[in-house]
Amino acid sequence: MKAKVYVTIKQNVLDPQGSAVQGALHSMGFEEVAKVRIGKYLEFDLDTTDRAQAEARLKEMCEKLLANTVVEDYRFELEG
Amino acid sequence: MKAKVYVTIKQNVLDPQGSAVQGALHSMGFEEVAKVRIGKYLEFDLDTTDRAQAEARLKEMCEKLLANTVVEDYRFELEG
Repeated sequence: MKAKVYVTIKQNVLDPQGSAVQGALHSMGFEEVAKVRIGKYLEFDLDTTDRAQAEARLKEMCEKLLANTVVEDYRFELEG
Repeated sequence: MKAKVYVTIKQNVLDPQGSAVQGALHSMGFEEVAKVRIGKYLEFDLDTTDRAQAEARLKEMCEKLLANTVVEDYRFELEG
């Protein structure tokens, strides 16, 4: 089973990396870029066929390791 | 207009960050994790209403700044 996990910075938390990329894009002439937020994108292969169990386990992985839930949100999609 | 950009490491390129996360998950008891690949996920707000132009400009941003096309792939989605 494949999974895709998205970890993003919460809306009210500053994103200095995003601001830096936005500044770089502006200085390169991409003036239309009004906002940039940068997160992580993770692709997993899981040795399991039980969808419900995979969801519960992924949630646990996100809470314990993949996301810092104080300042980050996460969501995931299961495929197959 | 909003855009989502995904930057991933090409399939045949090593991903040490992904391997480290996989190792950490294994040591935490998540033995079902067979593979982890880590990429970047970027959310953009763009001051434009021309979808075709936004696509062309995003492609240019990816090629010039956001992705290292030697070792990374990118794809993006436009919304609204």
